[in-house]
Amino acid sequence: MFESAEIGHVIDKDTFEAEVPALREALLEAQFELQQQGRFPVIVLINGIEGAGKGETVKLLNEWMDPRLIEVRTFDQQTDEELAHPPAWRYWRMLPAKGRMGIFFGNWYSQMLQGRVHGEFKDPRLDQAINAAERLEKMLCDEGALIFKFWFHLSKKQMKARLKGLKDDPLHSWRISPLDWQQSQTYDKFVKYGERVLRRTSRDYAPWHVIEGVDSCYRSLTVGRILLEGLRQALDRPKVKPEKVAVAPLPALDDQVTLIDSLDMTLRLEKDDYEEQLITEQARFAGLLRDKRMRRHALVAVFEGNDAAGKGGAIRRVAAALDPRQYSIVPIAAPTEEERAHPYMWRFWRHLPARGKFTVFDRSWYGRVLVERVEGFCSRADWLRAYGEINDFEEQIADAGVVVVKFWLAIDKETQLERFQAREEIPFKRFKITEDDWRNRDKWDAYRSAVCDMVDRTSTEISPWTLVEANDKRWARVKVLRTLNQALEDAFERADKQARKRKSRK
Amino acid sequence: MFESAEIGHVIDKDTFEAEVPALREALLEAQFELQQQGRFPVIVLINGIEGAGKGETVKLLNEWMDPRLIEVRTFDQQTDEELAHPPAWRYWRMLPAKGRMGIFFGNWYSQMLQGRVHGEFKDPRLDQAINAAERLEKMLCDEGALIFKFWFHLSKKQMKARLKGLKDDPLHSWRISPLDWQQSQTYDKFVKYGERVLRRTSRDYAPWHVIEGVDSCYRSLTVGRILLEGLRQALDRPKVKPEKVAVAPLPALDDQVTLIDSLDMTLRLEKDDYEEQLITEQARFAGLLRDKRMRRHALVAVFEGNDAAGKGGAIRRVAAALDPRQYSIVPIAAPTEEERAHPYMWRFWRHLPARGKFTVFDRSWYGRVLVERVEGFCSRADWLRAYGEINDFEEQIADAGVVVVKFWLAIDKETQLERFQAREEIPFKRFKITEDDWRNRDKWDAYRSAVCDMVDRTSTEISPWTLVEANDKRWARVKVLRTLNQALEDAFERADKQARKRKSRK
Repeated sequence: MFESAEIGHVIDKDTFEAEVPALREALLEAQFELQQQGRFPVIVLINGIEGAGKGETVKLLNEWMDPRLIEVRTFDQQTDEELAHPPAWRYWRMLPAKGRMGIFFGNWYSQMLQGRVHGEFKDPRLDQAINAAERLEKMLCDEGALIFKFWFHLSKKQMKARLKGLKDDPLHSWRISPLDWQQSQTYDKFVKYGERVLRRTSRDYAPWHVIEGVDSCYRSLTVGRILLEGLRQALDRPKVKPEKVAVAPLPALDDQVTLIDSLDMTLRLEKDDYEEQLITEQARFAGLLRDKRMRRHALVAVFEGNDAAGKGGAIRRVAAALDPRQYSIVPIAAPTEEERAHPYMWRFWRHLPARGKFTVFDRSWYGRVLVERVEGFCSRADWLRAYGEINDFEEQIADAGVVVVKFWLAIDKETQLERFQAREEIPFKRFKITEDDWRNRDKWDAYRSAVCDMVDRTSTEISPWTLVEANDKRWARVKVLRTLNQALEDAFERADKQARKRKSRK
Repeated sequence: MFESAEIGHVIDKDTFEAEVPALREALLEAQFELQQQGRFPVIVLINGIEGAGKGETVKLLNEWMDPRLIEVRTFDQQTDEELAHPPAWRYWRMLPAKGRMGIFFGNWYSQMLQGRVHGEFKDPRLDQAINAAERLEKMLCDEGALIFKFWFHLSKKQMKARLKGLKDDPLHSWRISPLDWQQSQTYDKFVKYGERVLRRTSRDYAPWHVIEGVDSCYRSLTVGRILLEGLRQALDRPKVKPEKVAVAPLPALDDQVTLIDSLDMTLRLEKDDYEEQLITEQARFAGLLRDKRMRRHALVAVFEGNDAAGKGGAIRRVAAALDPRQYSIVPIAAPTEEERAHPYMWRFWRHLPARGKFTVFDRSWYGRVLVERVEGFCSRADWLRAYGEINDFEEQIADAGVVVVKFWLAIDKETQLERFQAREEIPFKRFKITEDDWRNRDKWDAYRSAVCDMVDRTSTEISPWTLVEANDKRWARVKVLRTLNQALEDAFERADKQARKRKSRK
């Protein structure tokens, strides 16, 4: 994989200087078209061997292009805020917006390679990380991002020579960090695992470019040309209008025997039972969130449901159990301008709770496979791939200790009608009912299909859906709280078990 | 100040229960109007004596109102990201958007009181903090924010009784932290400094409300009523259209002998001199940013100037001196939707560099007193008060070690014409020239007045303006770099001197 980057590519200075002016102009032009179009972000990943010219190349790109449209991001030591969130959070928060270019210096690849080379974990964990990177990049590209992955390479001999050269040069010796020398010790491992990573993550939508780092003219010109070609292709691509399907084709089987239809909508609680059970579950919930084991977890509760199913009321009963400092509630409505300039999942990543905290999403990332699907706000391809992206997302955050609990609050069509009418009559509830609600009601069947698909495709062991029979609000509220409690207790127990296992192994 | 909150206010349970339903409805209604209008944010500050019912009240407010529109923020231990920024940064990043309510539990007041009570500093520093709080709140209110400040009070006797009561109650004993007991030791100091703070920060636009905390019915009802009344007043206030003045009245004296007119626009550098000096200054700059004293500072460079004055080119020469990982460049254009939903300065606070870092603002917070003033995008009152707000902002960040260097790149009208024409002819520079540029040119005199006012009002010892004669790009670029270097050296020297002073005092 690296052979052709060790054969000593050279471009002489004259050729270089003759070609650079045109290249620069073309790059600048491309960069401004990128900004003007504002259609997609560009992400440049910089990896490879120390001393192979990574820093120099990034510096040069900033000189050739307009640095005001480039964000160079480094990911060294994690900050404590980053440590309190799932690993990918730090990358999500740094994603460039559409029309801009982000250069990620030190990224998910450097993190996994460092970890493997220094023996923090073995191949299976490396493969997991590789897989996660692939899925992240696939998703970003599906959302329109243009990703360049550069691996700057040197043979072992070349690297040693270069490090020595830098060290002897008083102007540059400050650049050699202890880490660099360390890498010269671990070169073989680094290259071995690097090869594994490159092999498995070079994909048509985001291929690796291995750049021989010895000769600066060759290196710079090659990177510049690759960038330009990739940018031009993406910029000249005709603007495809996403295929809009107002109501998506229903699944073939629609015999009304869906999960939703099989719910027992008569379930209810008497007032006395309700009050007793509610208080019990609220106290249990408050206790669990104060449990010191909570410090290693975070809790995410997702509320989806039919209009007027009682999401707000259920959320308030959950919140009432807690000190308001313990939770935050994120209502999801139409995305803001900044949110639209980022990949779909960005707006949810930014609201993820830190360890020990609890976030309620009042509607959520499932909007894409519900309202956006049914109303045709996104293309069929978009919502179809969303299922996989959502599962990936939930797996990633679950792996980091986040407990994800998802509720679909279901009511039947008659109950909805009654509630709509009631809302229109009570002054301080009028804000709760809009034209949209009546319109959505006409699409009852389309929504039902979307819900069933959603549950089928995203109810996983890691984060199952809980369907809540919500014709009776009391029943629904108690069920919600009880489910949250069960999920937290299960998570604590699993963690305890693992801790015991680890202990006994020692 | 606290006397009337120690006399034992009580509201009996029947009165309370009779009044609550209507109050809740009215609060809910107000809250949704707040959201619908989306005109202003609401900030509720919670302070006072431990055990006086702060937590309980916030919890109750979340139950009475819709918690999905409320953000409860706590400010305990600073995170390392917060520690790396000026003190107010943590509050700015948590400001609620227009239409929402933020409850700040632990805020600038708790921070200054804790510091003073525990002897971390003396009265002069407390007064500085008081003053900073006042200015912050004034600015927020001027931008439309509605601020409620609640001080929950207990007499010493009441507090001790309440802490003891909580301790003996097994359901609540977990709530008593060591800090609470500590406060019972420091009650007298806390009240003494609390009084000083309240006295000096109770203003017509954001008065304090002292609430006696003993009786929960009294406490809750009082807070609820105050909130409702304040909300209603603000919501019912007629939407005043800001007075739009397309071109602001020029200052009385306009005899063409302005600072701008007195610049020597013939200053220039020969190519050889330029190349030598540029390299020298770039090396000096790189060295200064690597200096270990830089770790206690951050650098902010603001670039403003006539259109086509060469801001971009100057910024690139600055950037070229550095490793791209050391700086970021923030181009300021029209604000995004989220930015418009926050106070004017919010978008700049969010981009401030952390300690050790360097941020270039390509256009800046001075937009308000330049383009927004001249084009009439904001009212006369807005840009007039902006001078003071900007000085406050720069003082705050300078106090935290941020070195602020501001450049106005000036060219004369003929030079601008030449450059505009040249830009229209060079293909890859066409993007740089728009209709707007030609339009702005017609307002040359209005802009000049705005610039002179700006310099007069915001060139301070803490962060002076540097006027750069930019008819000759070479001269301008070297002057920019030299000024940055001088500013950093001065800052390092001042810090060294202070360190020596501190040492010799010991």
